Amino acid sequence: MIINFKRVPKHIGIIPDGNRRWALNNGFNKQDGYDYGIDPGFKLYELCLELGVEELTLYGFTQDNTKRPAIQTKAFQKACVDAVEKLANRDADLLVVGNTSSPLFPKELIPYTKRVKFGKGLIKVNFLVNYGWNWDLNYTLKNKAFEGDWSHDSLIKSIASSDISRMDLIVRWGGRRRLSGFLPVQSIYADFFIVDDLWPDFKPEQFYNALNWYQDQDITLGG
Amino acid sequence: MIINFKRVPKHIGIIPDGNRRWALNNGFNKQDGYDYGIDPGFKLYELCLELGVEELTLYGFTQDNTKRPAIQTKAFQKACVDAVEKLANRDADLLVVGNTSSPLFPKELIPYTKRVKFGKGLIKVNFLVNYGWNWDLNYTLKNKAFEGDWSHDSLIKSIASSDISRMDLIVRWGGRRRLSGFLPVQSIYADFFIVDDLWPDFKPEQFYNALNWYQDQDITLGG
Repeated sequence: MIINFKRVPKHIGIIPDGNRRWALNNGFNKQDGYDYGIDPGFKLYELCLELGVEELTLYGFTQDNTKRPAIQTKAFQKACVDAVEKLANRDADLLVVGNTSSPLFPKELIPYTKRVKFGKGLIKVNFLVNYGWNWDLNYTLKNKAFEGDWSHDSLIKSIASSDISRMDLIVRWGGRRRLSGFLPVQSIYADFFIVDDLWPDFKPEQFYNALNWYQDQDITLGG
Repeated sequence: MIINFKRVPKHIGIIPDGNRRWALNNGFNKQDGYDYGIDPGFKLYELCLELGVEELTLYGFTQDNTKRPAIQTKAFQKACVDAVEKLANRDADLLVVGNTSSPLFPKELIPYTKRVKFGKGLIKVNFLVNYGWNWDLNYTLKNKAFEGDWSHDSLIKSIASSDISRMDLIVRWGGRRRLSGFLPVQSIYADFFIVDDLWPDFKPEQFYNALNWYQDQDITLGG
């Protein structure tokens, strides 16, 4: 199925929430849910390729998330590594963004903290791994202290996620209507669409509903 | 009518959108809508006092908004000044936050850029006037350059809006599902509720619907 939309968002952000709730609903332990979140990501990636989306940003896990029990933390770290290994066999320009100076950042993903081309590229994929909004914003100050450059108009250019562009549309699965620290600068003008279903229950229709809704949004960039 | 809620958000943010659309729908010119947005703000303020909300932040106008035709800009500047003059006869601890170094900031409001107590105080009211998210975040760098203090963990403490606390709930009128630059740091963990009606059509039920919905939200602060 290919659906033609008049306006395709250039950059879509995804908050794939509800893995743990899905696991409990399906008789698993909480930490088992993350593994079931990988395939939905690839289905979504396929749809974005078909539609010609230029950039796709996915929330992997955050520094806030790592306060959870170790068994869960290990499970979502592993799911992130597995997802990247799977993506390496496809087409994508991958960038992993997150705090690498913490042991909670999976070492396997360090090579991707500079953008790496898999196959033909075709789409920018940004993956937030051990990401923290506070770390992202404070990065400027750290950087500037290092560089001795104190001009005051360049915070946005020097945040940790500065290689990630402004998002047009953010789709969150799992019913919660909040950002949970998802890229505070790039989400400024984004339209939010909430899918009540849990992420492992991903279906293309849910994403098409978001895109259909987006067709009618009046984009003003705050003007 | 007083409704008892089990959980009352400590800090509520309001995006009072739809004044221009309301004006056109009602046979006025676009710029006439802003004046009709003042009374709804006071109705909301009354409800917050009744409920015991501790802090209320309202979007007045943004630096993005001032790119609109001058007749509209003048109208929303005037509406902001009128609203503050009206609030001065009530109880509130008012703080106006916005870029005062621009001529688009109404001079009448400069005294309120430090918190001022009206009457018995009772509730913190923050009013964003000529506010810009970029200005807010970059303020740190400007400040730090001035103070020569380059520690890297204090961006959040030194943004222009640092006297405004984290918001628990953001309610936006006018149907759009976006933040439009509304306090990127304080909105990180906030739950969003969208009212489809336009702001001048404010009714208490709309606000109560938001609070009812908020009762069932699971507050995790990203954890």
